[in-house]
Amino acid sequence: MLLQDLMIPIGAAIVSFLVAAVFALWVSKQQPGTQQMLDISNAVKVGAMAFLRREFKIVIPVAIGLAVIIGAAIGFSNGIAFAVGAGLSAVAGLISLKITVKAAVRAANASGKGLGHTFALAFRGGATVGLAVPAMALLAITLLYFAFPDPITIAGVGIGASLIALFIRVGGGIFTKAADMGADLVGKVEANIPEDDPRNPATIADNVGDNVGDAAGMGSDIYESYASIIGTATIGPRKMTEVMKPLNRAFYVSAAIAIALNFVFTNLFLGQTPLAYALFGTTVIGVILVPVIQRITDYFTSYRFRPVKEISESAKWGYASLTLMGIIQGMRSTGPFMIAIVVALALSFAIASSAAPDPSQSTIYGIFGTSLTAMAMLSLAGIVLSIDAFGPISDNAGGIVEMTGMGEANRKVTDEIDAVGNTTKAVTKGFAIASAGLAALAMIQAFQYEAAKVFHVAFDYSLSNPSIIIGLLVGGLLPFFITSQLIAAVSRAAGKMVEEVRRQFKEHPDILTGKVKPEYAKCVDVATVASLRELWKSATLTIIAPIILGVVLGPPAVAGLLMGAVVTGIFLAYHLANTGGAWDNAKKYVEIQGRKGSEEHKITIVGDVIGDPYKDTAGPALNTVIKLLNTVAIVFVSAFVGILVLVH
Amino acid sequence: MLLQDLMIPIGAAIVSFLVAAVFALWVSKQQPGTQQMLDISNAVKVGAMAFLRREFKIVIPVAIGLAVIIGAAIGFSNGIAFAVGAGLSAVAGLISLKITVKAAVRAANASGKGLGHTFALAFRGGATVGLAVPAMALLAITLLYFAFPDPITIAGVGIGASLIALFIRVGGGIFTKAADMGADLVGKVEANIPEDDPRNPATIADNVGDNVGDAAGMGSDIYESYASIIGTATIGPRKMTEVMKPLNRAFYVSAAIAIALNFVFTNLFLGQTPLAYALFGTTVIGVILVPVIQRITDYFTSYRFRPVKEISESAKWGYASLTLMGIIQGMRSTGPFMIAIVVALALSFAIASSAAPDPSQSTIYGIFGTSLTAMAMLSLAGIVLSIDAFGPISDNAGGIVEMTGMGEANRKVTDEIDAVGNTTKAVTKGFAIASAGLAALAMIQAFQYEAAKVFHVAFDYSLSNPSIIIGLLVGGLLPFFITSQLIAAVSRAAGKMVEEVRRQFKEHPDILTGKVKPEYAKCVDVATVASLRELWKSATLTIIAPIILGVVLGPPAVAGLLMGAVVTGIFLAYHLANTGGAWDNAKKYVEIQGRKGSEEHKITIVGDVIGDPYKDTAGPALNTVIKLLNTVAIVFVSAFVGILVLVH
Repeated sequence: MLLQDLMIPIGAAIVSFLVAAVFALWVSKQQPGTQQMLDISNAVKVGAMAFLRREFKIVIPVAIGLAVIIGAAIGFSNGIAFAVGAGLSAVAGLISLKITVKAAVRAANASGKGLGHTFALAFRGGATVGLAVPAMALLAITLLYFAFPDPITIAGVGIGASLIALFIRVGGGIFTKAADMGADLVGKVEANIPEDDPRNPATIADNVGDNVGDAAGMGSDIYESYASIIGTATIGPRKMTEVMKPLNRAFYVSAAIAIALNFVFTNLFLGQTPLAYALFGTTVIGVILVPVIQRITDYFTSYRFRPVKEISESAKWGYASLTLMGIIQGMRSTGPFMIAIVVALALSFAIASSAAPDPSQSTIYGIFGTSLTAMAMLSLAGIVLSIDAFGPISDNAGGIVEMTGMGEANRKVTDEIDAVGNTTKAVTKGFAIASAGLAALAMIQAFQYEAAKVFHVAFDYSLSNPSIIIGLLVGGLLPFFITSQLIAAVSRAAGKMVEEVRRQFKEHPDILTGKVKPEYAKCVDVATVASLRELWKSATLTIIAPIILGVVLGPPAVAGLLMGAVVTGIFLAYHLANTGGAWDNAKKYVEIQGRKGSEEHKITIVGDVIGDPYKDTAGPALNTVIKLLNTVAIVFVSAFVGILVLVH
Repeated sequence: MLLQDLMIPIGAAIVSFLVAAVFALWVSKQQPGTQQMLDISNAVKVGAMAFLRREFKIVIPVAIGLAVIIGAAIGFSNGIAFAVGAGLSAVAGLISLKITVKAAVRAANASGKGLGHTFALAFRGGATVGLAVPAMALLAITLLYFAFPDPITIAGVGIGASLIALFIRVGGGIFTKAADMGADLVGKVEANIPEDDPRNPATIADNVGDNVGDAAGMGSDIYESYASIIGTATIGPRKMTEVMKPLNRAFYVSAAIAIALNFVFTNLFLGQTPLAYALFGTTVIGVILVPVIQRITDYFTSYRFRPVKEISESAKWGYASLTLMGIIQGMRSTGPFMIAIVVALALSFAIASSAAPDPSQSTIYGIFGTSLTAMAMLSLAGIVLSIDAFGPISDNAGGIVEMTGMGEANRKVTDEIDAVGNTTKAVTKGFAIASAGLAALAMIQAFQYEAAKVFHVAFDYSLSNPSIIIGLLVGGLLPFFITSQLIAAVSRAAGKMVEEVRRQFKEHPDILTGKVKPEYAKCVDVATVASLRELWKSATLTIIAPIILGVVLGPPAVAGLLMGAVVTGIFLAYHLANTGGAWDNAKKYVEIQGRKGSEEHKITIVGDVIGDPYKDTAGPALNTVIKLLNTVAIVFVSAFVGILVLVH
């Protein structure tokens, strides 16, 4: 492997960094606002950092220990790759957090200047994350591959990154919803003060949660990417009346560039052969799949369409109808979603397998084609991440506007951006689920290949092997069981938060009169500790399950487990994400009709609360779980040999 | 095949019929009560018959058409078997309905004589169904096997029975919950009249629903069975203070007899060989699995244990917490449930494969062992069905007691039996889901065997075959999608019911004063039409999906589809059944604490309403869907050949 072969990825990474740096600088140069705004922003930053610091205090020793174990049990290079992955993921979380907090306060300040300026701030803050994080991953993977040219070693980066992502994303997911529910339960219900009121001790924790759950969490989910740089450049601070259009334009520019680049590269490497065109075709399918899934998700979660309208209308029949209707629509959405994925898979397989130079190789070419489809989909991660990351920035900006009493007009600007952020957040989840599922399917093939290489045995992966069946059942169980654990975790952590807020109100009654400042940091701390404690079980289960099954029943059981987890995991994740998103927007739909405060509005608020852990904790967590399962399985397959020898 | 080889099953069937006849006669001889009670009972009977008649009017032509198509496309004997299966299932539904209605009014009348007498009536009514239905199936299958000694032909009985079961059970499931929700929404909320009040036009429809959904539905799910006869005989009309104990005793007597008979038969056929002991061992595992799963289900759905208590306590935090806690507990219950099944599968496979006379046959012996485990589990269907069927009888008896104003003491007797009925209903669902899952796993093996025989090709059923992956994804989708369709169906049908009740109240205001009798029959009719209309989509999807996938992608895709449907189906079904059951008992828990009418009670009522379509429509329907998918796949596999030849 020569360094010059790696010039293209390295070059792409450097360009991404440069554009990200330009955006970050631009954001920093904007006016941060009044002292009061800076104070709030600072409290959020301090809280978020406290959360990350406490997480790192636990995770870093674990990661170092695991790196040493992996290095000793599997190989030095694997240990290094794991450490690099873990380190990068942590850094990505940190970067995302810092830039998001910075952009939020500036966006709040800019809300007086109109939609265009505020939106540019939110988007460029998000794009810094969307470009820098994948570029960092691309650079590290390229250099590691130069040093250790072995795909399994590189997979170690994935396991390290997934582990940290699990802690930050899932821990953040529990944190953010615990703070949110805790703040609402005591604030709105008991103390009767509005949302985002500075007298509520849990307010800052709520804002911190948005950052650690959405921004840092998504940031530490690392993907490879190119082509999105130019797409992000199409958005700047000009006069605008609508937010969704420029986002769509940015996306389509990125998609067109991705298709063009895929065409150039397949021709460059394979010449003008039928195989080149076939493989190019599979990448086109991957790129097209992204907007198709976005449309499906949008249809089921935006109040512009029937499903959310039906949910909203069902509120007139009461809580039970609203709950059932949300679950109906979320489950129904898995239908078109899965059909889109299945059609894409079947087409790529058919195209690539038909172009195999030798008919006996048609299956392996077909599988390669489906992997390219997954890869092409992920090549748009940069723009998707950028579109996702601006959501929490505008959400936070809205919070700052509210807490500093900047007035209705400003709030309207941040609200509008926030509403679009809600939709793009849901849409991004659909993308993340589909791409995690497709990537996992490719990984399962890689796992079988790796197991055959390590064990020198052609295992039986057929459906009549009872190990496969047991693996499928155990794998199918994991997403259901982990979902129940995570939702329970949010409930318990929210309970802790409620106790803390009550304690503060009781010990310092003057908090409610506004004379005494609440102890925001204490609430952040409570949510941090609670979320970390709850997280452990799910993380351990995800890592231990494939290892135990592999040691006891061998690689086929592990392959079955991975497949079972994908099959139940993607349906459950998509259902949870869409049901939660749809409930949220059903509430918004009642609000934009001017029925805030009505009985129906009260009922839709309950739907939103039920949906919170659905869409922001359990749904996104299942992606990370699926990815971590796969990387653990692939990296530890060679360790099975050693353990099996020891056991027998 | 000689007739004398079939003497044992035929003899068992005849003995079952005799005992069932004795029970039916005994029930008929009891006092039916006052004229008013008979009137109500009659209205329920007329309504239930109207439902069945209308169902049959649609289903019988369809069944005859399908029988002709199957007869022409696959073989004459297959068509006959299908027709027999469909006919028997319909007859089973009819028998169940008649005896249940008869037993209910007599149980209501006996409620003055104390718990023992009432319970004996409810139980013996249920046991008539529990014995006659499996005996009928056993007799028909034995005679058919004598005429056409081919297992695939016999599977045709299953497809016929499953199709009718789908219509009666799922149609009944939509009917019962539509009537229930409709009656509650208008009655309790709008007109402010209590449950089971004769002024509510939907009351009779509600009672009809209990019969068609629970009694006729379960009855038309036909299982083979022996050994349960003596178990049912242990229960008679004596003085008693507790209901659960005699039920448990009846069950354990049946289980002990099943184990003893399995021992006798394995030794009779195979001598005192290691293989005989191994196969006997796999049947013991199957028998033990039944109480293990009953315990797990009981733990998660009875208010004697922590999960339901936690749900009940979460009501103090409001609707959202109650909803989330119910979902948490139901999803969590899939953990121990699946571990029990996986351990049973692994043990039977290990025991049976180790006893194979030749190591090269160890896999096929192992698979046979797991099938025996499923069979042994199903051998307890008689007693399980008996325990299940007494629930709706006591529920109806309670309704009659209430509607005729027989007083508190009588109501207490029927209530106590009803509460036990709720638990046994939940427990029976766990049994049905586990046995359907295990049977399906065995059927998937049979499907592969049959496909190899028909096509003379060794297909690739491994996880690297993209057809398998596509099959798994499509199969995994079906339970999610059908669940959403069925819950939506209940909502829509309930809406129709509400409109009808409103219409009657508006056109005849004297219904509310009690001067004018409501048009009960009209409500029954509305629910019948609505449930039939909604049912079609799910039934068509279940039949068409494996056929289309088989024609387009071949048998491996079908095997993948069956497996995918089992993997997501059992988790979803068990989660839905237990979450629904737990919400129901969380409400009961608040009531027995004397907090009826409190804010918490209101909140738990909402949970119960959400849980109704979960536990009584979608949950049980998924079983039937899984079974129908499997039988369709097996019976149509030979038809694929013809269609494939036509297509290509």
